[in-house]
Amino acid sequence: MPAYRHRHLLGIEGLSAADLTLILDEAEQWVSFNRGLRKQDDRLAGLTQINAFFENSTRTLFSFEIAGKRLGAQVANFHVAASSVKKGESLADTALTLNAMRPDVMVIRHEANGAAADVAAVMDCPVINAGDGTGEHPTQALLDALAIRRRLGKIEGVKVAICGDIRHSRVAGSNLKSLPLLGAEVRVVGPPSLLPDRLPEGVEGFTDFDQGIAGADIVMMLRVQRERMAAALSDSLGDYHALYGLTRERLEAANPSAMVMHPGPMNRGVEIDGALADDPQKSLIVEQVELGVAVRMACLDLLTRERRGVTA
Amino acid sequence: MPAYRHRHLLGIEGLSAADLTLILDEAEQWVSFNRGLRKQDDRLAGLTQINAFFENSTRTLFSFEIAGKRLGAQVANFHVAASSVKKGESLADTALTLNAMRPDVMVIRHEANGAAADVAAVMDCPVINAGDGTGEHPTQALLDALAIRRRLGKIEGVKVAICGDIRHSRVAGSNLKSLPLLGAEVRVVGPPSLLPDRLPEGVEGFTDFDQGIAGADIVMMLRVQRERMAAALSDSLGDYHALYGLTRERLEAANPSAMVMHPGPMNRGVEIDGALADDPQKSLIVEQVELGVAVRMACLDLLTRERRGVTA
Amino acid sequence: MPAYRHRHLLGIEGLSAADLTLILDEAEQWVSFNRGLRKQDDRLAGLTQINAFFENSTRTLFSFEIAGKRLGAQVANFHVAASSVKKGESLADTALTLNAMRPDVMVIRHEANGAAADVAAVMDCPVINAGDGTGEHPTQALLDALAIRRRLGKIEGVKVAICGDIRHSRVAGSNLKSLPLLGAEVRVVGPPSLLPDRLPEGVEGFTDFDQGIAGADIVMMLRVQRERMAAALSDSLGDYHALYGLTRERLEAANPSAMVMHPGPMNRGVEIDGALADDPQKSLIVEQVELGVAVRMACLDLLTRERRGVTA
Repeated sequence: MPAYRHRHLLGIEGLSAADLTLILDEAEQWVSFNRGLRKQDDRLAGLTQINAFFENSTRTLFSFEIAGKRLGAQVANFHVAASSVKKGESLADTALTLNAMRPDVMVIRHEANGAAADVAAVMDCPVINAGDGTGEHPTQALLDALAIRRRLGKIEGVKVAICGDIRHSRVAGSNLKSLPLLGAEVRVVGPPSLLPDRLPEGVEGFTDFDQGIAGADIVMMLRVQRERMAAALSDSLGDYHALYGLTRERLEAANPSAMVMHPGPMNRGVEIDGALADDPQKSLIVEQVELGVAVRMACLDLLTRERRGVTA
Repeated sequence: MPAYRHRHLLGIEGLSAADLTLILDEAEQWVSFNRGLRKQDDRLAGLTQINAFFENSTRTLFSFEIAGKRLGAQVANFHVAASSVKKGESLADTALTLNAMRPDVMVIRHEANGAAADVAAVMDCPVINAGDGTGEHPTQALLDALAIRRRLGKIEGVKVAICGDIRHSRVAGSNLKSLPLLGAEVRVVGPPSLLPDRLPEGVEGFTDFDQGIAGADIVMMLRVQRERMAAALSDSLGDYHALYGLTRERLEAANPSAMVMHPGPMNRGVEIDGALADDPQKSLIVEQVELGVAVRMACLDLLTRERRGVTA
Repeated sequence: MPAYRHRHLLGIEGLSAADLTLILDEAEQWVSFNRGLRKQDDRLAGLTQINAFFENSTRTLFSFEIAGKRLGAQVANFHVAASSVKKGESLADTALTLNAMRPDVMVIRHEANGAAADVAAVMDCPVINAGDGTGEHPTQALLDALAIRRRLGKIEGVKVAICGDIRHSRVAGSNLKSLPLLGAEVRVVGPPSLLPDRLPEGVEGFTDFDQGIAGADIVMMLRVQRERMAAALSDSLGDYHALYGLTRERLEAANPSAMVMHPGPMNRGVEIDGALADDPQKSLIVEQVELGVAVRMACLDLLTRERRGVTA
């Protein structure tokens, strides 16, 4: 296995299928590890991991925090609500300041597209994009891929329908790159105004929900931003749940063995029926969270290998 | 000594006197330990402790955080102000998400009665209730019992007067279960509207403060919620401090060697005179805080013994 | 080398030149240490470090947090926004509470002058002042001194111009004590209303910026508080940047090899030109942040030596 050749993980963009597969393969060991009792590895001992979150996202922050601690890193969370950023400091200045504290890996979430890349340009350590505006959220796409691969045994040829506000979703943005690269057949489903203007090659768009999920092996629901949905449906006076909400009945249009995914947090009764979400026979939602920690451990490990002198 | 047979610590309810005594006995070693220099034990090494606080309470959170770190746990604080909960996620969904990250023990504070039990129903790990609404706050009652036992040498037969807003206090709620179980003679004292409708068997209620504390060995003051006090006294136009505030003079109605307790934070000059609170000959208040860390270490240790394979 | 004889670090006030030099000398090793890969020392293992920040300052808090973690301490951040302080608890009561948890070192920032000293009077452990009102900020002055000494090879005889709101700046307050003590020639420069009423002996005041920085080896800019600046200039209707902002052209009045400093966070284009701040040939700003972690590690180490039984 070659050394991981990437310095940062800013997005799925630029990664090869082999890159993605390596991360998924590495994550497998951490899934088992996290199910054990003593979840303490020392490979990042003495390394400083900064989690700089400029948007509220306790779930993702928490996942990265636990991932880092289990690898032995010194984890420090940079809480922006209490930071200089409120005093008008620019993102670049904040990055310069954090970089001067000599971190070994930095995780960033920010509301602006491209923020992670801007920060990476300044930092001397690897940067992981934990979500930038409507751009990318690569570790989410990786954990989604791992969830599919573990449940269905493969990604190649799997039919995935991604449903909701495709246009503004960084989860969709990253999955629309990773899943086709790994050989999945991807469709997107949503109100016309919430589909992207241009779809990646091979990805088909649907505005009719039932047609969109027909025959799908995976139905991946996105979180509804209520304000955007209201605007998107204002002409039709429709009800989002009636048109684009996933229910057990509606899921019958998909493959009989289809599994449901959601990046969370869910709006139960809006984009997804609560009982369906809770059904372990149909839902991968909880497993997605679990795999998230494992995927992040793999990324933290892989990206710091070069500085740790690990070559394989 | 039998293995600790409880999975969760949701309240004093359901515990036996032997259960309580075991925790107090275990806590003793941590009191000494915490007075030493190197306060690092490794029994929770590699275990993940999540502190999920849905109400602001830095004191209790801090006490649990320090307790966990001294036992070697990976401690991660779930800050709700910055969490998905603000996006409308239900408590059950938050619990499912946190559970998927494979914690080994979870500490929860929440403004709703029963929240800790609801969360425990979802979690695969032990849950400690750090305060749920007007329900229970068992580690506070345990540290209170420890403070009494250490100072008076026993709890059996000790006369304890709990004073203030008994009805809405989870501190009172837990102490009204633990103290009688350990053989104390307990009375409650407060404005009529702030006493519970029903008192536990053997507990007497007083609306006259001086009568209530007469002969008491322990006078336990509760924190005043100013809004509630104003409402409780609106008919009498009285002043809370004049009627129900503890002063050095007033304490003379109690046993001459009586000790004062308060769970903090105090309203000096309202429910308690500041100079009295600061008198180490009369006040256990600072010691209560110290013992809180020790009691929480004992609880974290005991509740994780089963998964750690410790049988005695 | 004698044992460090100070219990607390509340300010530069009361320290000798030898004290300052010892801290700077000790910090040097941590500069190298922090540039290495495995930044983990165990001298504070099992010691509890509390960072109690009553004012938002993520930069300084973060610097202390990383410093403590690299020395192996259990670091716990007391977030005041979520604390009892919001319930009206006094600073002294908060200190008593934190002290009862048996910390080994406490770092405090507070908006009131003298707050760190008030807290130190209560605590059984060393206290480090991380900024109190318009009082002192000793670790900032120490890192500034270290930055000057490392770049210019000495502090003795170095000409330093401190520019901006001298009157209200705790950074200036501490530097006006430390730099003269170490033999620097210090001047202060700013609008008349923002200069102190009395200057330390040997320190000259200037209201003309160009005259003030003439021949300076170090031009130390302070952060502008916009509200104060507007008030200070209301008579002249002037523009702060035009009168007191540092630009590359303006810097020509100083020594040709003069270096620029700023404690951050900067207001680019207000008190300092952005391009100048970013020029590694002219600016020590990023290095100041780096040295801050090293200086704080030295302080945490020195102040806990006595309790750790280290005598040299």
